[in-house]
Amino acid sequence: MKATVVVTLKPEVLDPQGDAVRRALEKLGFQGVKGVRVGKLIEIELDDAQARAPGVADKLRKMADELLANPVIEDFDVKV
Amino acid sequence: MKATVVVTLKPEVLDPQGDAVRRALEKLGFQGVKGVRVGKLIEIELDDAQARAPGVADKLRKMADELLANPVIEDFDVKV
Repeated sequence: MKATVVVTLKPEVLDPQGDAVRRALEKLGFQGVKGVRVGKLIEIELDDAQARAPGVADKLRKMADELLANPVIEDFDVKV
Repeated sequence: MKATVVVTLKPEVLDPQGDAVRRALEKLGFQGVKGVRVGKLIEIELDDAQARAPGVADKLRKMADELLANPVIEDFDVKV
């Protein structure tokens, strides 16, 4: 089973990488881009036993909270 | 309008970052993780004129192809 964890910067945190992308798009001639934010998408392949175990979403949230995201500056969303 | 571009490594390309995450999850005691792949999620905020313009999806694909992804090793998916 494949689960996905999406990690994004909290809205109040500045994103210099996203700003650089926005400026680069402008230079390439793409107009009308108001803002860009860059996040991470982590695909986790679980074996069948884990995938069928109860509380798999909670386990994925724990993974995200402990390792995949920095909860001080990032939000995460788990999709099972 | 907010559009999302998801950039992932092609399946045949090795992902050392994902492997490092998999090993770290194992060390933290999370069992049953067979594989991890790390990709990027780019949120693009377009102004209303651009969002209503025809061919906005094509334009976003062009952005992804020219700047956001490296088509040699990465795939991308545009969600408008």
